[in-house]
Amino acid sequence: MNYALLNSIHGTADLKRLRPDQLPELASQMRHYLIETLAPIGGHLGAGLGVVELTIALHYLLNSPRDKIIWDVGHQAYPHKILTGRLPGMPGIRQYGGLCGFTKRAESDHDPFGAGHASTSISAAYGMAVGRDLSHQDHQVVAVIGDGALTGGMAFEAMNHAGGNNNKLLVILNDNEMSIAPNVGAMSSYLARIISGRSYTQAKDTAKRILEKLPGALDAAKRVEEHVKGMITPGTLFEEMGFRYIGPVDGHDFDHLLPTLQNCSRLNGPTLLHVVTRKGLGFSPAEEDPETWHGLGPYDVKTGEPFKSSGQAASYTQVFADMLADMADADDRVVAITAAMPGGTGLTRFAARHPDRCFDVGIAEQHAVTFAGGLAASGKRPYVAIYSTFMQRAYDQIIHDICIQNLPVTFCLDRAGIVGADGATHTGMFDLAFMRNLPNMTVMAPKDEAELRRMLVTSLTIDGPVAIRYPRGHGYGVSIEDSSPLPVGHAEVLTEGDSGLVIAVGSRVHDALQAVETLRSEHGRAMTLLNLRFIKPLDEQAIMIHLKSGQPLIIVEEGVAAGGAGQQIAVLALQHGWHGPFAHIAMPDAFPAHGTQAEILRDLGLDAAGILSRLRQLIA
Amino acid sequence: MNYALLNSIHGTADLKRLRPDQLPELASQMRHYLIETLAPIGGHLGAGLGVVELTIALHYLLNSPRDKIIWDVGHQAYPHKILTGRLPGMPGIRQYGGLCGFTKRAESDHDPFGAGHASTSISAAYGMAVGRDLSHQDHQVVAVIGDGALTGGMAFEAMNHAGGNNNKLLVILNDNEMSIAPNVGAMSSYLARIISGRSYTQAKDTAKRILEKLPGALDAAKRVEEHVKGMITPGTLFEEMGFRYIGPVDGHDFDHLLPTLQNCSRLNGPTLLHVVTRKGLGFSPAEEDPETWHGLGPYDVKTGEPFKSSGQAASYTQVFADMLADMADADDRVVAITAAMPGGTGLTRFAARHPDRCFDVGIAEQHAVTFAGGLAASGKRPYVAIYSTFMQRAYDQIIHDICIQNLPVTFCLDRAGIVGADGATHTGMFDLAFMRNLPNMTVMAPKDEAELRRMLVTSLTIDGPVAIRYPRGHGYGVSIEDSSPLPVGHAEVLTEGDSGLVIAVGSRVHDALQAVETLRSEHGRAMTLLNLRFIKPLDEQAIMIHLKSGQPLIIVEEGVAAGGAGQQIAVLALQHGWHGPFAHIAMPDAFPAHGTQAEILRDLGLDAAGILSRLRQLIA
Repeated sequence: MNYALLNSIHGTADLKRLRPDQLPELASQMRHYLIETLAPIGGHLGAGLGVVELTIALHYLLNSPRDKIIWDVGHQAYPHKILTGRLPGMPGIRQYGGLCGFTKRAESDHDPFGAGHASTSISAAYGMAVGRDLSHQDHQVVAVIGDGALTGGMAFEAMNHAGGNNNKLLVILNDNEMSIAPNVGAMSSYLARIISGRSYTQAKDTAKRILEKLPGALDAAKRVEEHVKGMITPGTLFEEMGFRYIGPVDGHDFDHLLPTLQNCSRLNGPTLLHVVTRKGLGFSPAEEDPETWHGLGPYDVKTGEPFKSSGQAASYTQVFADMLADMADADDRVVAITAAMPGGTGLTRFAARHPDRCFDVGIAEQHAVTFAGGLAASGKRPYVAIYSTFMQRAYDQIIHDICIQNLPVTFCLDRAGIVGADGATHTGMFDLAFMRNLPNMTVMAPKDEAELRRMLVTSLTIDGPVAIRYPRGHGYGVSIEDSSPLPVGHAEVLTEGDSGLVIAVGSRVHDALQAVETLRSEHGRAMTLLNLRFIKPLDEQAIMIHLKSGQPLIIVEEGVAAGGAGQQIAVLALQHGWHGPFAHIAMPDAFPAHGTQAEILRDLGLDAAGILSRLRQLIA
Repeated sequence: MNYALLNSIHGTADLKRLRPDQLPELASQMRHYLIETLAPIGGHLGAGLGVVELTIALHYLLNSPRDKIIWDVGHQAYPHKILTGRLPGMPGIRQYGGLCGFTKRAESDHDPFGAGHASTSISAAYGMAVGRDLSHQDHQVVAVIGDGALTGGMAFEAMNHAGGNNNKLLVILNDNEMSIAPNVGAMSSYLARIISGRSYTQAKDTAKRILEKLPGALDAAKRVEEHVKGMITPGTLFEEMGFRYIGPVDGHDFDHLLPTLQNCSRLNGPTLLHVVTRKGLGFSPAEEDPETWHGLGPYDVKTGEPFKSSGQAASYTQVFADMLADMADADDRVVAITAAMPGGTGLTRFAARHPDRCFDVGIAEQHAVTFAGGLAASGKRPYVAIYSTFMQRAYDQIIHDICIQNLPVTFCLDRAGIVGADGATHTGMFDLAFMRNLPNMTVMAPKDEAELRRMLVTSLTIDGPVAIRYPRGHGYGVSIEDSSPLPVGHAEVLTEGDSGLVIAVGSRVHDALQAVETLRSEHGRAMTLLNLRFIKPLDEQAIMIHLKSGQPLIIVEEGVAAGGAGQQIAVLALQHGWHGPFAHIAMPDAFPAHGTQAEILRDLGLDAAGILSRLRQLIA
């Protein structure tokens, strides 16, 4: 492919010099460039391909960074990055030291608000619109939000607020009928009805004519007309929420996009422009299976086949889903809930076996948790599978609806700890701290995929809320035959020795074991290693049995130090008058960079080598 | 007043034996009973008065506890409590050992889901409806939600989910045009338009006739009709969300309520019944000023005048609001945000002075925080005033939109710690833990109202997120003249002594000082007392200067122990090889009961007497 036109764009000024009739060619080159560039590295391909024309049109007409464009989630912002001077960085996107996979304020003035989680853009944009008006400025503020993100409650909160006021704000609804998985819920059907009903405009005209022809019924008809106006037009729901609705518009046709955006930018007050796009457009594998192609690893640019590493162990996600489905076979109280991530959480596998007991609630973590509470209150045993980072969205519901009522809901926190390429916004670094401080909650973390299975079985024996946190990625290929429950609140002794006590949590047990074994074989110093298993309740007895004053105490956990398990153990040690060399190997008080999981764990000293180095220091 | 009829109701069975024509008299007795009974004790009066008829009608027709009635928030459930056997407990409601001021599963089988925070009822009810259907049962599930609570995003998430499916569910929208303060936003105007437009029914009929008379335009007209059907009927927005809409109905007229509820209970699928009520009905002071009368202290049953304690110091809330308004006078970047609590957070006082810089976003804590982020990104200095307990709703937004981007947003957490009569659901026990574990965040807690002012001034000097947490209630009447900023990260030495180190946080400093002074005067043992001021960053230097091995170390904080400041200090002590008697006086791993703040603090050993008793133990 010839990327001459694309390569001539070093910033938005270059784009503005093009003639409108050159834009389709630019779009075509950008699309090919994205497909080729991401092939060896992976990334969020489908979302970007869907908004190539929309992004070009926006930057062609607006003046970023003076005008503010806020991309919801931000994984569709690759074309935006390309047009705003970041083309040279694209081959390194999401890689260690490279561009962020989402929008990020620190990366560019053209990213006025960073993202990663869904549904924040209208709130942020409306804040900027109000800020602009308070400062008597007149730039444009535009939020671009997907139809999936629109199901997130905070998007509705923001529309309710903005729609009740008159600040100029343009919300572009990028409707591709997808968030990551196909959307669910009433909003999704509503948008589909709008799109399928382009004859609405025609219907509106007809209604007008009808009313015009009946001057006799004028008094009543006037009232009718007033509402018919808003109602027969598609988008009534948005109009009732106080937004002017415009659309639907074909998001891949510059002849529609450019004049419509031009018009929208002249309107005052809150406006919603409904743009219809196709996720993955231009790359047939991505168009045909947009869920798989949402975010992905390296792939063959010709066939679209992903390059799979051979012989890898099953992922925690798969083990979780299969085990939960097994449990559901045996216990009809077991139900599973996901918030728009059936694939990512593994629940697609569960749903295949128990379709009527698997619930995708949309991007709606708050509702997911309280919905689970309702199910638990009616005798079910709900398993809420939400990534650690997204569970932050439902903290109040976990406290207020589950823990206070001591309902038996199990939270399955996938992607806990370092997540790799998605970086800071997606890191599951707070869950250990924010779950273990909740009364009635039991918190577990498995050392491997076999223990994950046993913890799931264990959760069913606990008559109250449970959190199980496990990392992104593959297990260790260990035997998963034992499905007996674990004794609640008991740690596991992995090694014994007189040179100190290492207590490791979940995902860090394996590396801690490697460090302890190396220390023994290379230095002849044997330490006791406890696999904590239960962050809460803490196995105080086992810890006190193995804790010897004067000898090192090391806690290793893949989460933030403040509020982590290590701090609880420190209190325990203090209360028992223990003293000696102490190390809490955990995540520091900073948001991590992106890169591979291995790279970030190494940087933080949380891999086997880092742990070993700390152990050596402590025994020195 | 004669309460003969009311006193004859010992449970719903007694209610069902009444003739329909006796219900208005029962309603009248109940209303008078509530006004009289709450006069000496205070409580949530207005909300209950508004739903007397609705509650009677629901229990008259449904069969609780088999049928499930879920009251959103639960502060309007006093009539429900009365009808479900809890009349004898009403004079003790919200008092120590008495009935809970909200619905509570542990209190009655008739409370299928407890509440306290807003907007949870549809999620819980839909969970119960799905649970019912999975178990092939056929009872009714009804959620009763106010129009204010409907602005909370999770209510929308729940409607989106439920509206996309066919499970039988009745949502009763209790529309009194109020949450606590008058509602804001587009939804509120929308509901007002519905109510004001009762002629809609008439308009609908007219439209039908028009269409009937025009068989010529049949093809187009059919399409029009299909939509006119849903559109000219009020409630289109709900219809588009997949709910059958019925209403509006007069919520104080049994002749409307009973047949409508009867009909609704026969319908399948999701149904929304729009009931219009008047908050505070039957007590003119409450009808005229429903915000003041939402939740209140003792009052004169004749005049409605509240019994005010004389000579009390200003509340933290007032001091906060006045200081913020002063700061806004001097710095036009200062803006204030509340989530439907302008009175409770004091922002009414701020808004009186800076109406254009005060934003009430509705019950929408998630949006409030990200909206503040947008304002901060456009150069403003937003102050988000939300109670500690409600800030839990926006945890992800604090992390994702504020802390990761290091935006200068200050969170003003009123009602932090023990809140008293509202009990577990409203206790601000987690904020110290969930705020201090966030990178970039500064966390402060003032020892008195004067220090609150200085901390507000200090926040303006910090170029990043700040949380200031202060308790419910009155200050100490200290001089508030000093408005100089505090040195960031520095603790204050209040007393010095050789018998140990006490470190107290915010609201517990005063009682800790009293305990330390008593210990010195009665036992001749002087301890050093540090007012921590900054929970983060921790003043490690000051702590290490005053920490002596072998002597007691005591940390006192009004928050949950797990993850609290005390655990960070414990790590610090350990790392420095300190050992000695250690006590972390904090809230235990349990949700507190309700009662006065003094009663609960006493029970938890967090008052001066409790602290003194621990100090005595440690020096013994």
